[in-house]
Amino acid sequence: MQRPTQIAIPTLVRVKDGALDRLGLYLSRGGHKRVAVLVSKGLSAPLPDRAAAALAGHGVEAAAWVEVADNDVESAARLFADLPKASAVVGVGGGKALDVAKYVGFLGRLPYYAVPTSLSNDGFCSPQSSLTVRGKRRSLPAALPFGVVVDTAVCRDAPRLLTLSGVGDLVAKFTAIADWKLAFHAVGEPVDDFAALMSDGSVHAVLSHPALDAEGVRLLATALLMNGVAMEVCGSSRPASGSEHLISHALDASSARPRLHGLQVGVATYLMALVQGTHADQIAALFDATGFWDAIAADPFSRAEWLAAVRAGPAVKANFYTVLSARDVLPEVDRHLTDDARLARCFR
Amino acid sequence: MQRPTQIAIPTLVRVKDGALDRLGLYLSRGGHKRVAVLVSKGLSAPLPDRAAAALAGHGVEAAAWVEVADNDVESAARLFADLPKASAVVGVGGGKALDVAKYVGFLGRLPYYAVPTSLSNDGFCSPQSSLTVRGKRRSLPAALPFGVVVDTAVCRDAPRLLTLSGVGDLVAKFTAIADWKLAFHAVGEPVDDFAALMSDGSVHAVLSHPALDAEGVRLLATALLMNGVAMEVCGSSRPASGSEHLISHALDASSARPRLHGLQVGVATYLMALVQGTHADQIAALFDATGFWDAIAADPFSRAEWLAAVRAGPAVKANFYTVLSARDVLPEVDRHLTDDARLARCFR
Amino acid sequence: MQRPTQIAIPTLVRVKDGALDRLGLYLSRGGHKRVAVLVSKGLSAPLPDRAAAALAGHGVEAAAWVEVADNDVESAARLFADLPKASAVVGVGGGKALDVAKYVGFLGRLPYYAVPTSLSNDGFCSPQSSLTVRGKRRSLPAALPFGVVVDTAVCRDAPRLLTLSGVGDLVAKFTAIADWKLAFHAVGEPVDDFAALMSDGSVHAVLSHPALDAEGVRLLATALLMNGVAMEVCGSSRPASGSEHLISHALDASSARPRLHGLQVGVATYLMALVQGTHADQIAALFDATGFWDAIAADPFSRAEWLAAVRAGPAVKANFYTVLSARDVLPEVDRHLTDDARLARCFR
Amino acid sequence: MQRPTQIAIPTLVRVKDGALDRLGLYLSRGGHKRVAVLVSKGLSAPLPDRAAAALAGHGVEAAAWVEVADNDVESAARLFADLPKASAVVGVGGGKALDVAKYVGFLGRLPYYAVPTSLSNDGFCSPQSSLTVRGKRRSLPAALPFGVVVDTAVCRDAPRLLTLSGVGDLVAKFTAIADWKLAFHAVGEPVDDFAALMSDGSVHAVLSHPALDAEGVRLLATALLMNGVAMEVCGSSRPASGSEHLISHALDASSARPRLHGLQVGVATYLMALVQGTHADQIAALFDATGFWDAIAADPFSRAEWLAAVRAGPAVKANFYTVLSARDVLPEVDRHLTDDARLARCFR
Repeated sequence: MQRPTQIAIPTLVRVKDGALDRLGLYLSRGGHKRVAVLVSKGLSAPLPDRAAAALAGHGVEAAAWVEVADNDVESAARLFADLPKASAVVGVGGGKALDVAKYVGFLGRLPYYAVPTSLSNDGFCSPQSSLTVRGKRRSLPAALPFGVVVDTAVCRDAPRLLTLSGVGDLVAKFTAIADWKLAFHAVGEPVDDFAALMSDGSVHAVLSHPALDAEGVRLLATALLMNGVAMEVCGSSRPASGSEHLISHALDASSARPRLHGLQVGVATYLMALVQGTHADQIAALFDATGFWDAIAADPFSRAEWLAAVRAGPAVKANFYTVLSARDVLPEVDRHLTDDARLARCFR
Repeated sequence: MQRPTQIAIPTLVRVKDGALDRLGLYLSRGGHKRVAVLVSKGLSAPLPDRAAAALAGHGVEAAAWVEVADNDVESAARLFADLPKASAVVGVGGGKALDVAKYVGFLGRLPYYAVPTSLSNDGFCSPQSSLTVRGKRRSLPAALPFGVVVDTAVCRDAPRLLTLSGVGDLVAKFTAIADWKLAFHAVGEPVDDFAALMSDGSVHAVLSHPALDAEGVRLLATALLMNGVAMEVCGSSRPASGSEHLISHALDASSARPRLHGLQVGVATYLMALVQGTHADQIAALFDATGFWDAIAADPFSRAEWLAAVRAGPAVKANFYTVLSARDVLPEVDRHLTDDARLARCFR
Repeated sequence: MQRPTQIAIPTLVRVKDGALDRLGLYLSRGGHKRVAVLVSKGLSAPLPDRAAAALAGHGVEAAAWVEVADNDVESAARLFADLPKASAVVGVGGGKALDVAKYVGFLGRLPYYAVPTSLSNDGFCSPQSSLTVRGKRRSLPAALPFGVVVDTAVCRDAPRLLTLSGVGDLVAKFTAIADWKLAFHAVGEPVDDFAALMSDGSVHAVLSHPALDAEGVRLLATALLMNGVAMEVCGSSRPASGSEHLISHALDASSARPRLHGLQVGVATYLMALVQGTHADQIAALFDATGFWDAIAADPFSRAEWLAAVRAGPAVKANFYTVLSARDVLPEVDRHLTDDARLARCFR
Repeated sequence: MQRPTQIAIPTLVRVKDGALDRLGLYLSRGGHKRVAVLVSKGLSAPLPDRAAAALAGHGVEAAAWVEVADNDVESAARLFADLPKASAVVGVGGGKALDVAKYVGFLGRLPYYAVPTSLSNDGFCSPQSSLTVRGKRRSLPAALPFGVVVDTAVCRDAPRLLTLSGVGDLVAKFTAIADWKLAFHAVGEPVDDFAALMSDGSVHAVLSHPALDAEGVRLLATALLMNGVAMEVCGSSRPASGSEHLISHALDASSARPRLHGLQVGVATYLMALVQGTHADQIAALFDATGFWDAIAADPFSRAEWLAAVRAGPAVKANFYTVLSARDVLPEVDRHLTDDARLARCFR
């Protein structure tokens, strides 16, 4: 008998203004009375208080309330080992706290509720946790969140750079899918069309409304969420991450001052789109409309660091074919950094 | 223990030019040697021959090759009862054949491969079959296809009206979701946010590229496909069908000459969007760009029939709250049919 | 990515004295307020009244209450077409009603609750429905019940012949698995070891307590239930049905007076075990201990009909290899019917 | 929509003589070319060589071949961090190696194949890993194996004490289920009937053939395997572990010389069965028939240590109600250790 493919999806999804204040309602409806809460260290007031009040308002006890500053796997393992009896893990805040909370939930096979307070990347709903292992960033297998609660009003109020970072991480899907197809033709790596179409469609949805207003933030949250599901569909990060992520990872390892993940990824995406010869116009237009270019130009990247990162990219991840593996793209990249008017503003 | 929600998704998805000619390859890779093929009666040459050649080319035997003209449930049951030993059911062509083939696959708990040759509605990848029971059209529970093979070149070559019908069926997601939210507020019917966001996002993806060229057809196919999955996510047709479908169903039952499903649905969607007070501009712009209005204006609807259909709409489906249940919309509808310049062209 | 095999299992299982009277509790806990109830026509008092009272006691409305006498697929389809709005289908009673109710639930993709009032065969928890199609009995694909409610006190009070029939249907797993292995060696049909071990283990569990007292009936119910799950594991009836079922089906088609399914199957199982050369002693001992032989001897079978049925067996089901396909077993069967002291009592 | 409960089951199961030598065949059929192998340190010759030859014979490369001696979670995490690219994890040998390999597979979300070379407990197919965290044994959530390969000939040749330990761990299901029901009545902890019946049935299957010959070892392997699945069904160890395990864990923590898990558990099971007032006769008879009592009597336990362990039992696991929580059982236990002839032989 052939069974259809089954995938896990988030059981609870709420993407709306004021969702943060309803967190306790969602948890108690889900049968939870005692949960472990992991919050980003330094999360700006009054968000932690609002989360705490939301729980208390529905009689959901925080069996643990931990501020997370580090995202090394040992910290996550320690948090798991010390976890008090709780029926769910809740992560509130940004990248590191959500990655750690997701991993703690995975280790405990407990339902994990992601409550991002900004949309700076697609990690809030992906089936991996980005953690450091012995000082080196790795993407460790985990599970999709059981619940995703995005308070769109909170995310709109987040620093604009964070939202732009999310836009940068989103467009990466274009180059990631192009790289995936290259990998199929070059080394036979199978492409999961369903995952690829889901990812591609999610970027197009945002392109239909290139603004960071209420509707734009809602579409961005949805698109990033659908990308997480696309990764679960195919069981890899291929629909979300390609050569542009290799460059960003190389920068993280070597740059004197690494920037927000999605800012690096966004510029690298545009660059790789030029190299791949597709989608560059659409990306440029979205960046124009959202002020992405201006934000980068206000604090430009180092051209030398980027050239080094492009050179280092292929070695970042073994057995991972991208356009960087296909040929020496350095000369093209060098030329684009100079000749492309938008890129030229981004580098010094 | 709380298990995450699990949904079935299509195991094989191919959306590309020339996919029809690779059908045998896909089936044989899936382990199939003998399949039952159901083809739309009158499917234009050379599509049936291409499908047959595609199978033969990879040694996949057609244990049955049946032309389907009727979509009554008794025909489907008879086809199932007479089904020869086969490991899969393949449906090739348009609406009726695909609905019947999907139902035969469901009754046999066999993998079903949908091979639409046009994109006239979202039925090719939905978990229901639209069949007539005792002369009355009903949407019967079935299962999502195991495989979806969309030859985008074939679909581009399909009569333009069919593709426009698909556009009409797609935008219905906007009004369907608005109706769903109304139903939540009015009668407490729960909304599945994940399904609603997936549906909404799929329409936006098409809005980003409002054209019926290669890219547009690919995006349309993807969007309709994602809608089918959204229905599977929530277990109902709510994310895809609301008041606009009630009007279309009423027309099917009473009109002297019912038109293509999606043409009726598309105009009804715009009308309901005006009544709901949201999304009308986006729909209008998409219809402008794709020539939808021109196609309708070339063979306008009967105003009297439509007014009757709007009146009959609420009774079409029991316990199904929409904007039609909320108030008497007849006066507004009457006014829009006259005052709205685009609608005015569509009626005589 | 390789996903582990996922199978559906009954979500609610209750095997205990008095479970019938708690049916309403189970349904209301499951969120059901309106259900469709299908009851065996002629089900002995006071069982129907107890079921009705159990529902009423927890505010569960019977949107339909239908007495089922026929098990042709057309009746089932008609019941489905006329089904009022209900959130679940409940089958109460014996074979036909449960097969029809299971099929109605399957057609409606509704949760189906099986409430057998006797243990005469393994159909109450199998993923197929035994229905007649154009007068011919067929095993149609369906789904495992969502709920299985076995009132062991009710089943103990059922006519002893029904319980013995269940014993007969259970031991068939031994010969079915032996036939499956023969099919693997002869024609390469793959054996699902997990399903086979589950089935085999279920018979052994009953062998550990060869009596029809409270414990014995509980073990019998569990074993038959586990067999249904085993069929779901492998997606076929192979772990539950082999040559012994072919003989019984042939008898159903040709005998002047067919007997209870499990009585025919039980004797055929012992006969085939002799022919296969394994398990006959264990079966004989269980039949000794439970009074199975005495029950058969009290109303013996026709030797001539059985010889004809053994001859007809291989043709009953196409492409289904068993020991009957392996060689002409008639001479052996003929000899066993005479020489085996237990069998000799069963035939005239 | 109510979806039926879905559980993961082992995708590949082989329980047969010679299965070890077919390991490479099973892996290559599963599409594996490079796997990580974790073997019990000190596993007796020629088993490691046979495993290696089995892989080599089908072109399956061992990307890693690690001897496992420790079962602390840090070792497992380290093995995971250093894991070379491999498509599956294979564990060969006994308890610790299998627990560590299972956990490594879980951390990597890789298919894990369990290849036990003895049947000393039910851990080879459970969804938990028994690992030490900061020196304290804990049962960490993991996943059911993707494959279970039991070479029954190898297991028959294993030291008899190991097999008897498996018998001891198996009968624990009787007292575990009794404790579960006590917990339901005392503190409302819900019982999953399906899981409980599955567990109970698995013990009965072994009772039907109380011997450690080929058939007995096959039934024992199957029963232990089904128990692992029962734990997955309900998402806890309740169907497999109750007061008898608390006593064994207390012994592990305090005894001067802890014995094999299942030997401790088996005696504790009989003792708790006496205290619970059920199943003691069946357990005693199985232990009589298999020589379990003789094996214990040859190296008796310390009465003082056991009394201390019974006293310490309730504190071993928080929020875990058993008969030990219900009343002070010390006086009864003290009496049984003296008065029960079988127990008297087991203690000094």
